[in-house]
Amino acid sequence: MHRASEDHRSVAFPHLVLPLLRDTARLLGAEPDRVALFMASGTGGWEVALTNTLPPGAQVLLPCAGHFANLWGDSARRLGFAVETVPEMEWGDAPSPERIASILAADTHHRFAAILVVHNETSTGVTADLPAIRAAIDKAGHPALLMIDGVSSIGSLEYRHDDWRVDVAITGSQKGLMLPAGLAIVAFSERALAAANTVTGPRAYFDLRPMLAQNADGYFPYTPSIPMLYGLRESVGMLLDEGLDQVAQRHARLARGVRAAVAAWRLPICCRNAASTSNTVTTIMTPAGIDARKIVSHAFTKYDLSLGGGLGPLAGKAFRIGHMGWLNEGMLFGALGLTAMALTDCGVPASAADACAAAAAVWHGDAS
Amino acid sequence: MHRASEDHRSVAFPHLVLPLLRDTARLLGAEPDRVALFMASGTGGWEVALTNTLPPGAQVLLPCAGHFANLWGDSARRLGFAVETVPEMEWGDAPSPERIASILAADTHHRFAAILVVHNETSTGVTADLPAIRAAIDKAGHPALLMIDGVSSIGSLEYRHDDWRVDVAITGSQKGLMLPAGLAIVAFSERALAAANTVTGPRAYFDLRPMLAQNADGYFPYTPSIPMLYGLRESVGMLLDEGLDQVAQRHARLARGVRAAVAAWRLPICCRNAASTSNTVTTIMTPAGIDARKIVSHAFTKYDLSLGGGLGPLAGKAFRIGHMGWLNEGMLFGALGLTAMALTDCGVPASAADACAAAAAVWHGDAS
Amino acid sequence: MHRASEDHRSVAFPHLVLPLLRDTARLLGAEPDRVALFMASGTGGWEVALTNTLPPGAQVLLPCAGHFANLWGDSARRLGFAVETVPEMEWGDAPSPERIASILAADTHHRFAAILVVHNETSTGVTADLPAIRAAIDKAGHPALLMIDGVSSIGSLEYRHDDWRVDVAITGSQKGLMLPAGLAIVAFSERALAAANTVTGPRAYFDLRPMLAQNADGYFPYTPSIPMLYGLRESVGMLLDEGLDQVAQRHARLARGVRAAVAAWRLPICCRNAASTSNTVTTIMTPAGIDARKIVSHAFTKYDLSLGGGLGPLAGKAFRIGHMGWLNEGMLFGALGLTAMALTDCGVPASAADACAAAAAVWHGDAS
Amino acid sequence: MHRASEDHRSVAFPHLVLPLLRDTARLLGAEPDRVALFMASGTGGWEVALTNTLPPGAQVLLPCAGHFANLWGDSARRLGFAVETVPEMEWGDAPSPERIASILAADTHHRFAAILVVHNETSTGVTADLPAIRAAIDKAGHPALLMIDGVSSIGSLEYRHDDWRVDVAITGSQKGLMLPAGLAIVAFSERALAAANTVTGPRAYFDLRPMLAQNADGYFPYTPSIPMLYGLRESVGMLLDEGLDQVAQRHARLARGVRAAVAAWRLPICCRNAASTSNTVTTIMTPAGIDARKIVSHAFTKYDLSLGGGLGPLAGKAFRIGHMGWLNEGMLFGALGLTAMALTDCGVPASAADACAAAAAVWHGDAS
Repeated sequence: MHRASEDHRSVAFPHLVLPLLRDTARLLGAEPDRVALFMASGTGGWEVALTNTLPPGAQVLLPCAGHFANLWGDSARRLGFAVETVPEMEWGDAPSPERIASILAADTHHRFAAILVVHNETSTGVTADLPAIRAAIDKAGHPALLMIDGVSSIGSLEYRHDDWRVDVAITGSQKGLMLPAGLAIVAFSERALAAANTVTGPRAYFDLRPMLAQNADGYFPYTPSIPMLYGLRESVGMLLDEGLDQVAQRHARLARGVRAAVAAWRLPICCRNAASTSNTVTTIMTPAGIDARKIVSHAFTKYDLSLGGGLGPLAGKAFRIGHMGWLNEGMLFGALGLTAMALTDCGVPASAADACAAAAAVWHGDAS
Repeated sequence: MHRASEDHRSVAFPHLVLPLLRDTARLLGAEPDRVALFMASGTGGWEVALTNTLPPGAQVLLPCAGHFANLWGDSARRLGFAVETVPEMEWGDAPSPERIASILAADTHHRFAAILVVHNETSTGVTADLPAIRAAIDKAGHPALLMIDGVSSIGSLEYRHDDWRVDVAITGSQKGLMLPAGLAIVAFSERALAAANTVTGPRAYFDLRPMLAQNADGYFPYTPSIPMLYGLRESVGMLLDEGLDQVAQRHARLARGVRAAVAAWRLPICCRNAASTSNTVTTIMTPAGIDARKIVSHAFTKYDLSLGGGLGPLAGKAFRIGHMGWLNEGMLFGALGLTAMALTDCGVPASAADACAAAAAVWHGDAS
Repeated sequence: MHRASEDHRSVAFPHLVLPLLRDTARLLGAEPDRVALFMASGTGGWEVALTNTLPPGAQVLLPCAGHFANLWGDSARRLGFAVETVPEMEWGDAPSPERIASILAADTHHRFAAILVVHNETSTGVTADLPAIRAAIDKAGHPALLMIDGVSSIGSLEYRHDDWRVDVAITGSQKGLMLPAGLAIVAFSERALAAANTVTGPRAYFDLRPMLAQNADGYFPYTPSIPMLYGLRESVGMLLDEGLDQVAQRHARLARGVRAAVAAWRLPICCRNAASTSNTVTTIMTPAGIDARKIVSHAFTKYDLSLGGGLGPLAGKAFRIGHMGWLNEGMLFGALGLTAMALTDCGVPASAADACAAAAAVWHGDAS
Repeated sequence: MHRASEDHRSVAFPHLVLPLLRDTARLLGAEPDRVALFMASGTGGWEVALTNTLPPGAQVLLPCAGHFANLWGDSARRLGFAVETVPEMEWGDAPSPERIASILAADTHHRFAAILVVHNETSTGVTADLPAIRAAIDKAGHPALLMIDGVSSIGSLEYRHDDWRVDVAITGSQKGLMLPAGLAIVAFSERALAAANTVTGPRAYFDLRPMLAQNADGYFPYTPSIPMLYGLRESVGMLLDEGLDQVAQRHARLARGVRAAVAAWRLPICCRNAASTSNTVTTIMTPAGIDARKIVSHAFTKYDLSLGGGLGPLAGKAFRIGHMGWLNEGMLFGALGLTAMALTDCGVPASAADACAAAAAVWHGDAS
């Protein structure tokens, strides 16, 4: 009778939780006993990562050229950490492993306790090269923890937590996992976990210790959202069934088609280096004098199409096409065709035909 | 507690049923007391129409050039009626009002008790001109009842039951109304209703009399599907909210784009007269030597696209793109792009780009 | 894209249909190639049974002492069959195997083509003894087909189609299978099936031949309700998982508790013979001067409890407590407690406490 | 297309959010511009309350005699606050306004920055008298903020945020609001809000300032759970439609019946003062030698009934019957009957009949 509110303490509950943690860990390439689920948006995951592993006031290095890196930095500052950004990065740049290596090499006193990297910067459509960054840290022989935000990458792009020796990874339920927001998934390394047991800063809701202790038995320290757990089981299962390599390849193939279409419109993308283009989101710059907000709003109102708006300094100057989750070529033909129509309506002549031609050339080898 | 199984007899039930009948009648352009809902697929509606209005063994005239006209004729024959088809019609033809007029004019003994017209023949993508057929009957001064199958037209194309003086119209829940199959909606004229009270043939489940008697009070003579009634309320409400004229115009606009795309592929459509092309389905002929079934199966398996197969004599020779329900340009860009890719894979070179270009020219005035 | 409307013709569809037919047949104890699913309420199943196996105008014997037997008889008459009822039956009686045997023995010319038996008469709460009736027919050496209505028995009470040598059995989706109305499930014997291929009466929508022919390949001759097929898969699976014997025992145990509670109120039940009481519904007679309709309406409005009303001649004189489907003791404690309160409010003093005491004595061995 | 992930930034989103905040505020009796929705369980709400209004290290007074008061105290300590509990309280006691008044009167230096009160202590089934506590604070002339946990009261019991001059109130989505866990609803007084703009402690995810700033325009600073917002709209709407007074009276009436049933079993309840018994949960003490955990587990496994277990020191010594949300008498008859059966099975003889009799006497005036 009172099941909805009570059964997260029932004897049956671990039968849901324990396999779910195992599969979620498999999705991230981590061990299950180092993965925790918090009831929060991905933003809450940032706080889990920082407060559980860093001493109060610790200094962190942030390659920052995007809205979500900015926000993560803000969170860190508001939590009392000292944030130093990698200099001379511009929006559209990926974090440079070389520059990170040289900054860390110069940090002989190991002031940096962690380096925070947004794996896939949703605002600019840029993907960081995590293995190269890991190698840069190793090369510098620096003990900083590598923390990554995988909100718009994990479940869509290749991600190998343990193989890549990431120390803390965060993702949310609402992007690659195709659920509503509400779950922050956080994976740790053994080293990060050890830190969680020694750091002394204030933390309560996001305290990892009771969470891992209870998760180990299949429970939660406070009422979890049971529908979200069932949803996560479903979406993790779908991704594992498709195969993580296949999922990554599908996103790569679809994204190449989207970029070809954008190229056909002769609109620049925000990402400044072809090797760093994101396979989950493409950020497109609008010509001077055209308010990108109008395009987004027009597409939504007239064509029932949800484009992402430009974020932060890109507000009004760029819009975004998302291409993660259960997409196929058909849905993207539609998105590209409608985007072309919305662009043209807003004063940016763009051909639906050229876009579809370019995408079809990529997806199907059609002569373009 | 036993609500699910019992409440179709509750005092609250008419609050659901009576407004639903009113709105459904409005959708058809008929009076509510001449509209009935039967728990059956649209096929069951044919039987409702025939057995409630025609004396046993009555003769009916059937303009027949399509799979669903064939099936309606079969139903009529199996129910003991004598079916005479309009001669010299070929698949792809629309019913000719002139020929109907001349047949009826020659039928001086009024042997034909009814004429059965499929408003929109789903197998060929051909729409009949009902007002012209009504005028033809009137001109011949013939008393035959005009019965129409509106399964793939009502809720998508213009339909005016009382204005057009149709005697019996049938539709189902699964096409323009975007629900699962399971409801047959049947509208009558006063004349057809009068016949229902005098004809003597056997009928039980599909007997109109207890249905109308109970419907008038908001009940049903047997357990209705309550979720289907709620679903119908939702979809009829959406169509009335959009506006019936707007719905028809939207389907016309989208269909013109689909036909332009098919023309760009240089594939013939089944419909032989441009004035009769259907705005809810386009039937496309495949070149000799190409099995259309392979295209449909390949599109389903490889691209997750549901094309319709060729029906009856068109099996293997044609496939269909449906474009009714809650479609917009984006979904059709996708369907056209995927269809092009599936065609090409199956040996029918077809350009996704040309299709999208042609459709965009229609939908958006893009130079093509 | 067009999946909803089209995929019942897809290559994938038989993967849903064929196992579903197998499991449904197992639920009935019949062979899968003799089970068909029609899109209709259970009432439509009556028509399937009659028109597919009996020659036009055939005579049928109907033990008739209840609303649904009456309605089935009406259907048969409206379809042109001659219905003879077993004499001297009163509402509350079960069909008497002895009397059936003697009627059939007297029918030396084998005028009766079938005997129609409602397995569980929902209006009176009476269950027929089908094996005894089968034995009576055998004893009389009479070739009449045994047709049964299992709408409120199959899926709740013991039913063994082939073992009991029933010729046609009908059930619907909306009672023991806990789905909305909309599916008529019909099982045949080999003899009944043979008849279906020779009888000549009119039938179209309910014609068994195209249905079985298409079902054999996993398809339907007209658009089926796909959600209903998925629902049926779910509910048949649940019943088979629980075990058919366990399901029947659960209903027996729960029903004994309900009857004990009614006895505690000193209200008579409609069923006149203790051996025939139904385990899925209990029909309770109200004292003279008390309108049972008021009780039903009051329970619905004030206590949110759906009781069944008295049907036919029992209107105003009886009400019904249904106890089929996913019920447990808790839900019935609630129904009994609320019924007691509604009864008392309407002038029939009834103790919730006594009812719960009596039920608990049955269900739990509590001293009563 | 990307609606699910993007539309919380769309122009349409405020049409959902702004009326929802207004109605939620009305439910709490607060002004909408002082109510915020955080994506977290109710536990996260404790952190919102503390970190946004108290200077780092502040001292708080906690009347603590229950599991959730304990946990709130733990959260406060882990966040660096100094928690002083009201002395000599035992589990089962309600917070004493007199004692609070005297403690505050003695606190002439105003060391206590806040007093934390669990409005309805779920573990013990005890409700605090908030107006009396407010009066005690006023009488002492003490400036401490009054913070209350309304997780198991708001939406079920009377609560008047502004009238009672509560400074911070917290509730969650998963109890009285009948949704999954995942939303923390927090209401402030003007004074508490002013503090939120001056306190300096670390906070990021739970920072009230960006939340209120964005909420004012109908947005959120990070991705909200859109289904939860729709769910909240639905459940708040239902409560306002029923009427807050009616909701409170319904819970009072149902709870009196439950307590009468428990009294019939001669089992003591945890609450030590009749004036403080909770109308949303009843905590029942099991006799010495009986492990209450076994009762809970047996009820769940055998009778599909979710009882709450004893929490903290009550583990094994008590169990709980919850009675909040969309309950009616029928569901509670069921819960009481099944609880009696589970108790008896576990060695605590308890009569289902006596329980139902006692409840019916309360709910319906039946002679007991």
